[in-house]
Amino acid sequence: MVEKSQTKDMLGRSGLLPVDEALHILLEHLGGIRTASTSIPLTEALDRVVAEPILSPEDLPAQARSTMDGYAVRAADTFGASESMPCYLDITGEVLMGTAPVGEVKKGCCYKIPTGGLLPAGADGVVMLEHSVPIDETMIEIIKGVGPGTNLIQKGEDIARGEVALADGHLLRPQDIGLLAGLGITEVRVTQKVRVGILSTGDEIIAYTENPKPGQIRNINAPALAGVISRAGGVARDYGIVSDQKEIFLPAIRTAIEENDLVLFSGGSSVGVRDLGEQVVEALGPPGILVHGVTLKPGKPVLIGQSGRTPIFGLPGHPVSALVCFDFFVKPAIEQLSGRGTRPKLPGPYIVAGLTRNINSAPGRLDVVRVKMIKEDDSWHAEPVLGKSGSISTLSRSDGYFLIDEDSQGVSENTAVKVYLYT
Amino acid sequence: MVEKSQTKDMLGRSGLLPVDEALHILLEHLGGIRTASTSIPLTEALDRVVAEPILSPEDLPAQARSTMDGYAVRAADTFGASESMPCYLDITGEVLMGTAPVGEVKKGCCYKIPTGGLLPAGADGVVMLEHSVPIDETMIEIIKGVGPGTNLIQKGEDIARGEVALADGHLLRPQDIGLLAGLGITEVRVTQKVRVGILSTGDEIIAYTENPKPGQIRNINAPALAGVISRAGGVARDYGIVSDQKEIFLPAIRTAIEENDLVLFSGGSSVGVRDLGEQVVEALGPPGILVHGVTLKPGKPVLIGQSGRTPIFGLPGHPVSALVCFDFFVKPAIEQLSGRGTRPKLPGPYIVAGLTRNINSAPGRLDVVRVKMIKEDDSWHAEPVLGKSGSISTLSRSDGYFLIDEDSQGVSENTAVKVYLYT
Repeated sequence: MVEKSQTKDMLGRSGLLPVDEALHILLEHLGGIRTASTSIPLTEALDRVVAEPILSPEDLPAQARSTMDGYAVRAADTFGASESMPCYLDITGEVLMGTAPVGEVKKGCCYKIPTGGLLPAGADGVVMLEHSVPIDETMIEIIKGVGPGTNLIQKGEDIARGEVALADGHLLRPQDIGLLAGLGITEVRVTQKVRVGILSTGDEIIAYTENPKPGQIRNINAPALAGVISRAGGVARDYGIVSDQKEIFLPAIRTAIEENDLVLFSGGSSVGVRDLGEQVVEALGPPGILVHGVTLKPGKPVLIGQSGRTPIFGLPGHPVSALVCFDFFVKPAIEQLSGRGTRPKLPGPYIVAGLTRNINSAPGRLDVVRVKMIKEDDSWHAEPVLGKSGSISTLSRSDGYFLIDEDSQGVSENTAVKVYLYT
Repeated sequence: MVEKSQTKDMLGRSGLLPVDEALHILLEHLGGIRTASTSIPLTEALDRVVAEPILSPEDLPAQARSTMDGYAVRAADTFGASESMPCYLDITGEVLMGTAPVGEVKKGCCYKIPTGGLLPAGADGVVMLEHSVPIDETMIEIIKGVGPGTNLIQKGEDIARGEVALADGHLLRPQDIGLLAGLGITEVRVTQKVRVGILSTGDEIIAYTENPKPGQIRNINAPALAGVISRAGGVARDYGIVSDQKEIFLPAIRTAIEENDLVLFSGGSSVGVRDLGEQVVEALGPPGILVHGVTLKPGKPVLIGQSGRTPIFGLPGHPVSALVCFDFFVKPAIEQLSGRGTRPKLPGPYIVAGLTRNINSAPGRLDVVRVKMIKEDDSWHAEPVLGKSGSISTLSRSDGYFLIDEDSQGVSENTAVKVYLYT
């Protein structure tokens, strides 16, 4: 078995998939799978995903409202009014905020009305304050006539009763919570958070709370992955460090699959652990292994599989590689399982910055180059954060990354690159 | 008093500050103010702000490690080795992951070593597997010599003991949590979350859980603001809807100031409420009012003040305006109070997209134009989300916004604009 994996590595690219293709295979296998839905109070719904279309329970506004400070009028009374030929209206009432207008605007009359005030009966338009000249307390001169509906928002114009306020799969942002509050919706049906189990393996790995003996290193991946899982909207459950003996590892990962919607394991970089992952994911199928290795640096040895409905990811042991694989594969899978797959995915935002040095890349692979952002002379530069393999300090020295795509052999100094920020 | 505010509005820009200037005044007043620090477990430290520099408690790595699979050698034994003139070494040991190497690499000998394995005594370099040819189980041929230190990461090379691992003011991202775990740091000193009190006022506003009578509208701002506060790293406390009578409003806001690090109030759009805000913030000084009105659309009427160490923001009643003011002023204030002001602020990332229609703008003000992102023919377009004043459905129809700066009178169709996404 060791021979098999070694052979793969010696053969270089053989069997490696391009990142796009690997992601496509993964998401296709997850099509139609998502977590169950649950009803929660609006106050807890931030960053959750809408599980079924939310229809407006009422017309908004419930009645026509003014969009200006001014005078509610019968539009016909003002037709043709201009500075040279104004019309005159009696002020017979006033609309107050928060209360229903009293009475009716009769022909030749008007009511004072504030922005947001309810249109009183009889009126069908609003003359802006700026287009009126007060004569005295009881009369105004109109210097610009209005048509019916002018300076009004009509009943149901904002959202009509029964209209979709938020679609299935929508991520609830603060402004969406505001919208639902405005509609009086106090409970929302959302998908359950994606439960993600994390197993760590590798002879040299110990819990980060322990003191390493010579040759041992602390578990960096589990706590870092818990963070990215939480940011992606999932709930991490740490299964600790599991022996890489198959008879121990396989039952442990089976338990994690039963208790979660998605399972990650990350291991030492030893050939034995890589090989174990492969055997275990195959054993957990169908469908078993979907992707073994991608043309991505770092992150090449990622293993993607599925056991029934549950995706399984074997992440490289190196923390930087593990986090890159998370961003490219695990995060989209969490989003898919949480129901966000039904909405169009927006591209990732970036900053354009000048590269501070030449960076070489092998053609045929996607390079993720981490950078530190540096401001000089009022413009931003991207300085590649280099470090030896296994250097963990590079983890936090970078502000973001840029990509060198499969067709490129590198990027020269001063080239403008798109930097995707770590937030 | 009503006259005073009306006059201000009629005078248009008079007294309005440019956004940059207003923000500068605000942050200057908050200089040196930040929340107290507290010690928390690493597992809870995601998205918190480092309160004092975190020094590495140890050398990392603790001993030199190999960065390659290969053979640990005495470099001098391999000097000048090449394919045409290889050298031969006896394999006298093997380094295993997770354990200290046994014995010493003697002259003319080597140990098998995996990536990450500890360098055994005697050795000072590693020959890559690819540069060796096995002769039998006990001997290899070296076809490329190495110098001392080749393919090694030295003791303390990643982070040396006492070196700053994370600076004061650093926001703890998942990779930073990983770094701290790698250093065995289990408790972190962070700043306390910024407590933000929210008061709502306005005759027409009712709790969103209530049924509006004619003319009443539900409180959208408080739940939407709670969301953006939480995302900015603060903790929102909702003081509910407070009467806009000064003798009730002033004591309520005093209580909120005592119990929070920052206070927001948002009100109806009536002149009375705006005027009340001004009186109250002045009464709560010194320093009192810092900014009253900015050349920003929407968001012009924002009121910024300070009572002792506590910043106070009077946000416009309209939810869209309130959220814009939050992004431009309140969020930077929360970041400053949480201690992030000591770190350089990165620019906001964006997507470049073609505008789908002409948008006019008045020169002399910064316009925030909300857009929906639309994909057509594989490229992204930004479609302005227009809606009448008070239209709340526009809140959730937009994916982000672009800016039309003070010098511009508008942007034409097909212009490439920088869209800042709402995440």
